[in-house]
Amino acid sequence: MARGAAVEQTVEVPDSLITGEIEEDIVGNIISIDEVGEGVYEADISFRAELWAGHLGQLLNLVYGNTSMNPHIKVCDISLPNSVLDAFPGPNFGVDGLREKLQVYDRPLVCSALKPRGKSNGYYAELAGQFARGGGDLIKDDHNLVSASFDDFADRVSRCQHAVERANARTGGKCWYLPYLSCRLEEMEKRLEYALAQGVNGILIAPMTMGLEVVRSLAERYPIFIMSHPTMTGSMYVNTTNGMEMALYMGMLMRLIGVDASVFTNYGGRFNLSMEDCLRTADRLREPMSGLKRSWPVPAGGMQYERMNILKEAYGNDTILLIGGSLLEHDESLETATKELIEIIS
Amino acid sequence: MARGAAVEQTVEVPDSLITGEIEEDIVGNIISIDEVGEGVYEADISFRAELWAGHLGQLLNLVYGNTSMNPHIKVCDISLPNSVLDAFPGPNFGVDGLREKLQVYDRPLVCSALKPRGKSNGYYAELAGQFARGGGDLIKDDHNLVSASFDDFADRVSRCQHAVERANARTGGKCWYLPYLSCRLEEMEKRLEYALAQGVNGILIAPMTMGLEVVRSLAERYPIFIMSHPTMTGSMYVNTTNGMEMALYMGMLMRLIGVDASVFTNYGGRFNLSMEDCLRTADRLREPMSGLKRSWPVPAGGMQYERMNILKEAYGNDTILLIGGSLLEHDESLETATKELIEIIS
Repeated sequence: MARGAAVEQTVEVPDSLITGEIEEDIVGNIISIDEVGEGVYEADISFRAELWAGHLGQLLNLVYGNTSMNPHIKVCDISLPNSVLDAFPGPNFGVDGLREKLQVYDRPLVCSALKPRGKSNGYYAELAGQFARGGGDLIKDDHNLVSASFDDFADRVSRCQHAVERANARTGGKCWYLPYLSCRLEEMEKRLEYALAQGVNGILIAPMTMGLEVVRSLAERYPIFIMSHPTMTGSMYVNTTNGMEMALYMGMLMRLIGVDASVFTNYGGRFNLSMEDCLRTADRLREPMSGLKRSWPVPAGGMQYERMNILKEAYGNDTILLIGGSLLEHDESLETATKELIEIIS
Repeated sequence: MARGAAVEQTVEVPDSLITGEIEEDIVGNIISIDEVGEGVYEADISFRAELWAGHLGQLLNLVYGNTSMNPHIKVCDISLPNSVLDAFPGPNFGVDGLREKLQVYDRPLVCSALKPRGKSNGYYAELAGQFARGGGDLIKDDHNLVSASFDDFADRVSRCQHAVERANARTGGKCWYLPYLSCRLEEMEKRLEYALAQGVNGILIAPMTMGLEVVRSLAERYPIFIMSHPTMTGSMYVNTTNGMEMALYMGMLMRLIGVDASVFTNYGGRFNLSMEDCLRTADRLREPMSGLKRSWPVPAGGMQYERMNILKEAYGNDTILLIGGSLLEHDESLETATKELIEIIS
């Protein structure tokens, strides 16, 4: 199977057609194979760096192209040389850049989401303003808050952005509003540029539905803060013997394409992900990675208000705690609930 | 779980926040739940059509967004109303359009791939010419044939395209060459436009690495023939209790985004896909689907020269038989091997 992958990911021809030169220069090199469990083997395969040809699409193909069709091969780790890493500018802000902009240094950041879909833009703007007045750091659109028309998007963005700015002016805070960028590719830059013109500093975007390559390109071409949403990514990492480790997809890969803050479903919420996978994802977002800035882990998904302190302990200060429904459900106003939450985690 | 999905895919808030109006207008509607095996249930969930908001990204999110993180929910079928289907122009050529261009009506089409990576562009052009002289229909770049530079891409495309044109001029045939479009998004249209200027009529592209939304946008904006490559799609459909049915992802979805010919790994080749899934994929590519043209199924992956007649029986005439390594391995020249193959399947 290891040899199969080494051939499949590079030349995809029968062995009889693999000449000495092709074998030497192109086919993957099997470094080791270890039995790590009954009938479970770990193979370390090395590929020549230049085979990635300088673009993300081919990097993905090289690492897990046709092999993804094999239900019994999972990618457990990827180690990229600096020659590859340095071709990616990575996050524009990262952990330190955002802290500097928001002037918050000594606690995790707090993020909430404007929801549910089906309310008016005025309602979302009111929520955004309340969250900012309560001292919250980042308020984003829910990823279900999609606008069929440019006008509806523009209306929501200007209302929410201005509500947050008014609140900031009153409190002296620096809360950011992140609108959700999800539309036809042909309209994406028009929407983004409208948002930037309104004073927005960053966006929420879903790499799996808009395309990882699209996100990478946006991150390189616009000096924006990018929070990624994990919608539709699950099949890449929740299966036991196929796909990738969650930490690779939601950690390493998101950071590589320029994501400043990667939202992932936390352990103990509505989804049954393991604590180990979640913490490793946070590690891959923040560990040294050539010259790339550190990204924020954003554990989310059915987060309980009361558990926030435990999450701060588990993930550390350089974490964005994303709490949506549970904060909105709080007995008090969102402003008061946000204030209380920030006290809890400070 | 069904209720969880109906809420998760639309509003993602606790039940306490779902008012009557939101429940009525936004949350998914559970039509039925049937036990189809021991502990296995099939739920039919209906969403209001306008929730898709007119773009593919949100359609994917609506159908299988956060639910993809649940290892125990798989999408078995998707039925889209004409109001959604009609928003997608679909394939530019499809089955009938390509037959008319190539003037081949009474047999499956034959396609091969230029490989292995690591040879010279002159070598690939020689292969392309041989295949065209042998009467082959479509010769594509292998999906590992990536060019780091525009110049290398341009050199390969012009050599291969002209080799095919020279062969066509000699034989009176109408073989098409499909170069592989895989590069940074910023350079993609430059490469595509170069290829079109050389006389190329279509491309090979990998929706999962370049982005489904990118492919859809290309198909709408350029009058080109698009063959899709399945690299990295496997995790979306090879897992038993997560992901989607293969026929949905490789069939329905590819056709929706404008793919004229969808390459998928065939049963009985190197990958262990079921005959049923493969034939259903072919069905979803060719069955009636509002005004969308029919797409070509392209079974591939370790296809044996000798099995081609059996595949013709199984898939029918409106199929592109993609045979790569096995054809190159043939004792005779590629020209002779191609001639023999076409005789076998005619």
